[in-house]
Amino acid sequence: MRCAVLGAGGFLGTNLCLALQPRVASLRAFGRRQSFPSAMTGIEWIPGDFTEPTSVATAISGCDTVFHLVNATTPASANIDKLADLQSNVAPTLRLLEACREAGVKRVIFISSGGTIYGLPQQVPTPESAPTNPITAYGISKLAIEKYLGLYEYLHGLDYRVLRVANPFGPYQTALKSQGVIAAFMHQCASREPIHIWGDGSAVRDYVYVTDVVDALLAAAQHQGPSRVFNIGGGQGRSLLDILNVIKRVSGVTPEIQFSPGRPVDIPRSILDITLANRELGWAPQVSFDEGMQRTWAWAIAQQDGISPDHGV
Amino acid sequence: MRCAVLGAGGFLGTNLCLALQPRVASLRAFGRRQSFPSAMTGIEWIPGDFTEPTSVATAISGCDTVFHLVNATTPASANIDKLADLQSNVAPTLRLLEACREAGVKRVIFISSGGTIYGLPQQVPTPESAPTNPITAYGISKLAIEKYLGLYEYLHGLDYRVLRVANPFGPYQTALKSQGVIAAFMHQCASREPIHIWGDGSAVRDYVYVTDVVDALLAAAQHQGPSRVFNIGGGQGRSLLDILNVIKRVSGVTPEIQFSPGRPVDIPRSILDITLANRELGWAPQVSFDEGMQRTWAWAIAQQDGISPDHGV
Repeated sequence: MRCAVLGAGGFLGTNLCLALQPRVASLRAFGRRQSFPSAMTGIEWIPGDFTEPTSVATAISGCDTVFHLVNATTPASANIDKLADLQSNVAPTLRLLEACREAGVKRVIFISSGGTIYGLPQQVPTPESAPTNPITAYGISKLAIEKYLGLYEYLHGLDYRVLRVANPFGPYQTALKSQGVIAAFMHQCASREPIHIWGDGSAVRDYVYVTDVVDALLAAAQHQGPSRVFNIGGGQGRSLLDILNVIKRVSGVTPEIQFSPGRPVDIPRSILDITLANRELGWAPQVSFDEGMQRTWAWAIAQQDGISPDHGV
Repeated sequence: MRCAVLGAGGFLGTNLCLALQPRVASLRAFGRRQSFPSAMTGIEWIPGDFTEPTSVATAISGCDTVFHLVNATTPASANIDKLADLQSNVAPTLRLLEACREAGVKRVIFISSGGTIYGLPQQVPTPESAPTNPITAYGISKLAIEKYLGLYEYLHGLDYRVLRVANPFGPYQTALKSQGVIAAFMHQCASREPIHIWGDGSAVRDYVYVTDVVDALLAAAQHQGPSRVFNIGGGQGRSLLDILNVIKRVSGVTPEIQFSPGRPVDIPRSILDITLANRELGWAPQVSFDEGMQRTWAWAIAQQDGISPDHGV
């Protein structure tokens, strides 16, 4: 497999590159910047902006498999400027797909959003066949990209897989980008700052440890079967208060908690049905929530102490 | 009702304006150009490009109801340049919705595409709840716009209705824009040219007479009820060969027929389930297919002879 990872400098990208590097014939990592440059030592890094067509074409040339992990926005920021979200995610993805077609790429694996694509779910756990009515422009962009992937396969034979990932957590997730509540909580806890909660803490989400997401990405790259879109989650829901309790346990710290009013993009309860990924990809989460939380805390503390992060996550 | 019709100079727009003019407190017709200027006599016409934000804001200012009928592409052309389709349909619609929110518009009624939004239908007749996997970028743009409308209602209280219209036909449909097979066939027949068919003529579509579509638009503007998205079709499928037979009957002409290979955007069989519109909008097609074809032929012949078109369609 000759791979390009787009959005390689971020949380999932860094973890994916570390897993791909020893396994594939070639690997090219593309992104605006590396969140953890030391982690990417020895990996071919192509700096560039996803909205710049020439850079993207360079990154994918000669590759058979492209992992598209770029997120130019967050669920909250996307609603503030919906047009900017469209222009920074959907439009450059269309240029990417055209470039993939021209370059003879065989398969594109796209990270979609299990947490936003269904909107207010009518069925929980939510299967892939559920209605998709996002309440954030972020989810609409993801949905549009899924549909364009389907179109490119239909018209041009460009193979693809979509992973609708729940809330991933683990090492290399930073607390700075207002995504990743576990990273934010752990950072606040490790810094002895108050933990900040939107809403009353009852909001239930589906959390999945990052190495399980990476396993799903590797499986999706090899998958032969009829389905194209797979939910990837931890298989269970946990409230914010549940998470705080686990953090207290793994950290030994009892943080102060500050509550703020909920936001309109916050869905009360979101859990993915992961039956299809299990059946077709042979995939299931391998790392228990508590184990994942322990590993993430150990990494967060090492970061805090200025110790180089452990690559063997 | 103080209305703006965007895309007013086209086929549906012209028919809608003629129906609205005697019924509403004010009417503003916006578009790039009028296909039939003489038909629009007495209607306030604002020339402008949908991609130009200032023009659109001017057109909707002071209106409570906006009919969005703009189509910058066709199902076939959209696949040739998918990014151009996105930029000319979805991006300006996002600017429109923002302008509607700022101007205090109460409701947007959007013409979506019953023929392309479902892709290759798994169920025929196809209900609104069916999967939406378009095989043309045209349908993906329509779908994305539907989702953004849902988002604007959820976040900003902007009310909306979507009509997924099948294949409309009738007066003021031109044969020039490679949409509207009935208009094209009738024009070819009236001109004694060969009739040109893509595929073997067995492709089944759902045709609906234009005054029935206009009735559905008027009902959608007033509708109070839970649903937002309605199929609008004739309720039956007809093959291209069926249509040719009806044209032969109403015209008395037996045209020469030329067959060409089918195109990838052509779906073998598309018929909409119109039960929901009947139940919630109290709407059903009133004009039989034969009656609609007779009226359309009479109009086409009048056009051919240079006789001013009959406004009382």
